[in-house]
Amino acid sequence: MKYELTIRVIKRARVKFVRFPCHLGRFATMVGEHGGAFGEIKSVSAGKNYKIRDLDIHVPSEAAFEAICDETRGMEGIDLVRVTDVVQEVHEGGKIRVMPRMPVESVDDLGLIYTPGVASICRQIRQDPDLAYRFTTIPNTVAIVTNGTAILGLGDIGPVAGMPVMEGKALLFQLLAGINGVPILIDSHDPDRIVESVQAIAPTFGAIKLEDIKAPECFDIEARLDEALDIPVVHDDQHGTAVVVLAALLNIAEYTYIDLKKSSVGIIGLGAAGTGIFKLLRAFGVREIYGTDIDQAALERFGQADGRPTDLAGVMSQSKIVIATTGVPGLIEASAVQPKQVILALSNPDPEIEPQAAIEAGAAFAADGKGVNNALAFPGLFKGALAARATRVNNAMKIAAATVIAKFAQGTDLVPDILRKDVHDAVAEAVAQAAYKTGVVKHEQDVNA
Amino acid sequence: MKYELTIRVIKRARVKFVRFPCHLGRFATMVGEHGGAFGEIKSVSAGKNYKIRDLDIHVPSEAAFEAICDETRGMEGIDLVRVTDVVQEVHEGGKIRVMPRMPVESVDDLGLIYTPGVASICRQIRQDPDLAYRFTTIPNTVAIVTNGTAILGLGDIGPVAGMPVMEGKALLFQLLAGINGVPILIDSHDPDRIVESVQAIAPTFGAIKLEDIKAPECFDIEARLDEALDIPVVHDDQHGTAVVVLAALLNIAEYTYIDLKKSSVGIIGLGAAGTGIFKLLRAFGVREIYGTDIDQAALERFGQADGRPTDLAGVMSQSKIVIATTGVPGLIEASAVQPKQVILALSNPDPEIEPQAAIEAGAAFAADGKGVNNALAFPGLFKGALAARATRVNNAMKIAAATVIAKFAQGTDLVPDILRKDVHDAVAEAVAQAAYKTGVVKHEQDVNA
Repeated sequence: MKYELTIRVIKRARVKFVRFPCHLGRFATMVGEHGGAFGEIKSVSAGKNYKIRDLDIHVPSEAAFEAICDETRGMEGIDLVRVTDVVQEVHEGGKIRVMPRMPVESVDDLGLIYTPGVASICRQIRQDPDLAYRFTTIPNTVAIVTNGTAILGLGDIGPVAGMPVMEGKALLFQLLAGINGVPILIDSHDPDRIVESVQAIAPTFGAIKLEDIKAPECFDIEARLDEALDIPVVHDDQHGTAVVVLAALLNIAEYTYIDLKKSSVGIIGLGAAGTGIFKLLRAFGVREIYGTDIDQAALERFGQADGRPTDLAGVMSQSKIVIATTGVPGLIEASAVQPKQVILALSNPDPEIEPQAAIEAGAAFAADGKGVNNALAFPGLFKGALAARATRVNNAMKIAAATVIAKFAQGTDLVPDILRKDVHDAVAEAVAQAAYKTGVVKHEQDVNA
Repeated sequence: MKYELTIRVIKRARVKFVRFPCHLGRFATMVGEHGGAFGEIKSVSAGKNYKIRDLDIHVPSEAAFEAICDETRGMEGIDLVRVTDVVQEVHEGGKIRVMPRMPVESVDDLGLIYTPGVASICRQIRQDPDLAYRFTTIPNTVAIVTNGTAILGLGDIGPVAGMPVMEGKALLFQLLAGINGVPILIDSHDPDRIVESVQAIAPTFGAIKLEDIKAPECFDIEARLDEALDIPVVHDDQHGTAVVVLAALLNIAEYTYIDLKKSSVGIIGLGAAGTGIFKLLRAFGVREIYGTDIDQAALERFGQADGRPTDLAGVMSQSKIVIATTGVPGLIEASAVQPKQVILALSNPDPEIEPQAAIEAGAAFAADGKGVNNALAFPGLFKGALAARATRVNNAMKIAAATVIAKFAQGTDLVPDILRKDVHDAVAEAVAQAAYKTGVVKHEQDVNA
């Protein structure tokens, strides 16, 4: 049997099934034989002897979908009514909107939210700036800032082409944590300009989420903004990813009876994600961390940060746990896999080695990046930081988040379902507690009182 | 009888009316005698012999409200159950939120709006940047930018204290025009920094609304951003106000049989609003425009722009129509009013002369600023500009907006009700048409095709 194919195309097929034995089964089998799988399946209408359904079909390529359509047209009792590009449809007009939080139906409502009522609120904030945290959206609003230089696996496609991802993050912020996410697109490769711009508009927000900004600029931009601002600044590609990877490792360690802190870990690819993972594992207590990258400067930074620079062969031969974040499909050859090694080949959509191949080569455990989604971490991480009014997100907060995420995984899953709100609530609670404990909150005196 | 008092305080009183003759009438009369008026009145609950209502009471001062409460406590059959600060209540937590435009209920929904689906949309925009106008919120999102230097009549209170006003504008944008308004607070008095920051984040937005930025910096900031960006940049305090004033003047001209273009107009106060009004009246065709300001530099700018600088007495004696936007209550003495003059004393909350006093002094027509709200103009102005994908908002578009607003006024009103959506739709339509006609649209070839 083939390994699972990477899904790149989703289409919605409206299909009329005329009453005929096993029609749905025959259709679904045919789709599966073309490497396709199903998303949502919805009934549209039904008649005496037919039923019309909309079936979302996930396929590796446009060609595979064409083949499915052709075959469908030849099947008895199954009519392809129409095909729509459901991904385009759902993105039409964008994915978020700015909405009023209260109804405004009369001139009197207007007087409350606008003039003359609003003036008294402005005056109160002017007298006591802290009241902005009570009477405005600032404490619950996060800027999602990108310059579009490292969008998904697509690279430097510019901030506007990256907007659909930013809107997706904003949507998830509200859905999973009740936070207002505001995309901010900056068309610049210049760290100075990005830092200055974000600093200038920072009073609008309770926190800053840097997103899909490429390495090495991302390190400098994050560090400078973190230093300049008294609100959390988090580059999600580093830290969100690191939190989810640590959560997965905590569960893997349990399943495989490994003592994570005493294990040797090897990181292949020292970009934003790899570096974030390195820093967090280090803070967690892992002492023996090898790393490699084709970029010499990245390797040097890693060495200066107390990592152990080596090459690909060195990582593979010396590490009990291997974590790859290179974006290079198939980089790890099966012959390099050591017996009982743990391998996380995280590049999306195509991993450095297929998990099945790694297992067959002797790995104790292997996974790809499909489940390791930083959307598991960032909603709760920010919600907790905002709730505590933390001035930054430190390692204690990230480790608290990872620990909670790990606990919520079910069965032998590495991490829980992204859409479980109880997970994000629990992460937020743990993160806020960690912020209080480590004293990175705005009003420390309130906590100690 | 006293002139109408300025409402500065709104409170919500929960009152239990025990069955007793004229209880509501007695209560309402008492409130009126203290200079109070009513906003919304809602029934909360009712029993066999009583009814509990929440009454929003608008009063000129806290003291007046205290007096009302005291008197209520002495009234038979009327119990004051509790008082709440309804303005604070409605502002609690802020007034807007960023919401998903579609439901996300399953991992399959997630696959459409997030990975893997979103990557194909990013790639399409990368290939054809114009698709951002189809697949993102950019074309329907307006930045509401302030540095907090001229918030309402409160002056330079800083951007954070101005946030409740910005959120109010954002709320009205969605409510009246279906536009996403995104407040952007910049804590700087430096025009360079403001221009650079807005320019840096401009790719996020379909238009820029500058708000409550004080003169004279506002002129420079607007001009430079308008020059630098290919999306509309509008300083609302200048142009939104000017559009509504022109609309009001069109109706006043009709009621008073004045030929507006041939009239002499005098403008007292040449800040943002006064200058915006001057520019638009000039563009409309008014040739004889006098102006005055206590700031010599403002007066010089006015003269250089072909206005006729003079002093207060000069404006009052030479102008058929006087428009005051000074923020100085009672500036115009009744003795200065000429017979049959038209006087718009627009400063909020307290006008330069009470309309009633101006009429008694011989004016043919007088009004204050309560009805002249730029929320009548900006939603339709931006909606039309965005719909046409205009690269700027020119005078033809503003005049089109004013003409439509004037037409929708009912009876002898100067302007229509702000909450009428048909007005904003009609304004948008007229503005878009004017943009096409004057060729300030992004894709001129499409229009001529």
